[in-house]
Amino acid sequence: MQTSIEKLNVKFNKGLHVCVGLDTDINKIPKHFLRYSDPVFEFNKTVIENTADETAAFKINFAFYERDGAKGIENLSRTKELIPNDVFTIADAKRGDIGNTSQMYAESVFDHLNFDSVTLHPYMGYDSLSPFLNYQNKFSFILALTSNPGSADFEKLQLSNGRFLFQEIIEKVKSWNSNNNCGIVFGATNEIELQENVANFAKLPVLVPGVGTQGGNLKKIKKIFQNQAKLDYLINISRNLLYCDGSEKFPETLKKVLGEYNETIRNVSE
Amino acid sequence: MQTSIEKLNVKFNKGLHVCVGLDTDINKIPKHFLRYSDPVFEFNKTVIENTADETAAFKINFAFYERDGAKGIENLSRTKELIPNDVFTIADAKRGDIGNTSQMYAESVFDHLNFDSVTLHPYMGYDSLSPFLNYQNKFSFILALTSNPGSADFEKLQLSNGRFLFQEIIEKVKSWNSNNNCGIVFGATNEIELQENVANFAKLPVLVPGVGTQGGNLKKIKKIFQNQAKLDYLINISRNLLYCDGSEKFPETLKKVLGEYNETIRNVSE
Repeated sequence: MQTSIEKLNVKFNKGLHVCVGLDTDINKIPKHFLRYSDPVFEFNKTVIENTADETAAFKINFAFYERDGAKGIENLSRTKELIPNDVFTIADAKRGDIGNTSQMYAESVFDHLNFDSVTLHPYMGYDSLSPFLNYQNKFSFILALTSNPGSADFEKLQLSNGRFLFQEIIEKVKSWNSNNNCGIVFGATNEIELQENVANFAKLPVLVPGVGTQGGNLKKIKKIFQNQAKLDYLINISRNLLYCDGSEKFPETLKKVLGEYNETIRNVSE
Repeated sequence: MQTSIEKLNVKFNKGLHVCVGLDTDINKIPKHFLRYSDPVFEFNKTVIENTADETAAFKINFAFYERDGAKGIENLSRTKELIPNDVFTIADAKRGDIGNTSQMYAESVFDHLNFDSVTLHPYMGYDSLSPFLNYQNKFSFILALTSNPGSADFEKLQLSNGRFLFQEIIEKVKSWNSNNNCGIVFGATNEIELQENVANFAKLPVLVPGVGTQGGNLKKIKKIFQNQAKLDYLINISRNLLYCDGSEKFPETLKKVLGEYNETIRNVSE
């Protein structure tokens, strides 16, 4: 059986690194979707159908669905089922709790919803992550350095051993990666830190949020990875793809914008 | 209008400090509940009806409901509605994400599900918490030192300024508490750290998990608070209450066990 990361590696080998973030907000989608009884679902269907061939992964942000209660979870589940089996999926749920509780969350995202991977909060330490890591064929992205301003509050604090907290987390995650099913989240807004730390990521694949609306620069980020010959990175794009065109021409524009992102990443001379 | 914390203070003033944790696992509830079409809901109803008068709060652990997908969220919502309005409620969801995403989670727990409070991961810093803190009449418990073994991995690391990470978080939370709607989570298994740090908690109420199955000692914990004349603490009890009796006599045993916990807390000489 193909593991989740093997599925993703097929895409990396094709030069695909864009992860489409399904942070769907009913208030921002093209107005013509509102004619459907379930606008968010129809919109997601259009996004998936028009990007699945040229994307490395889809990331579903749980908050945007949980907001609508049971109906939202139903929508999340139905959206997940639309994604072709050969495309890697990320449950962007940022979970993390004591062992027996994390076990329940792991069952929810991996067994019940059948995602390939999940995003996790490292704060509570190893036993809060191990129920996820015990799924050997699944994959976990652990938060190292995030893309938001608050990353300066704790993540970038220096420890008495000289490392910054996010560096300590990366080192620990490397030591917990015996099943080769761990990766890290590293925000695109931290370009300098990415440059300084990328050589220490070793075999950890990287999920990079923060390109676009949040200010991360795609060309600079991809160059940092290319200069290291590190190919196992995912650039998440949410708002700049989802809301690229409010008209009926949304599918065509979406394909075009995704194509431009892919071209920018492929072009090694830039 | 009464704020959430005012509701809780009424209970503290009555000497009530037990929080009943609704971590309901269908595999562990008394067998006679399985005759109902919805055993978890009927069990929760029995727990709430038999404890609401003598408890300070109810904490609902989201993982135990999310595991069942949309049906589970429906159950969570219906369980929340069973709790009398005068009893403080905690959404134990351990959320925390970038601002626009945390905003969605805040709407979910505070507006949609109407909880009084939520538990939050501090790792991503201020702007990951502020959407919750902006609800002035609601309340947020931010993880400081948790009850699990993994709390040693990151939470107890020493920073270059001499503080431990959990102490830095407590200091930051104090500075973010201008609306008096922040508290902290501090695990009962960290008795020594509680003793050493309780004087620095200032006006932050404390949610204490880890008494019972996890090994925390109720008498020692409550004494630490009493010695400081700090009255704004909640002792969460989940498994030792929920699974106290597998027979038909469960309601009576539950009342008795809760009464014993309350007595232990009230008794200042022990």
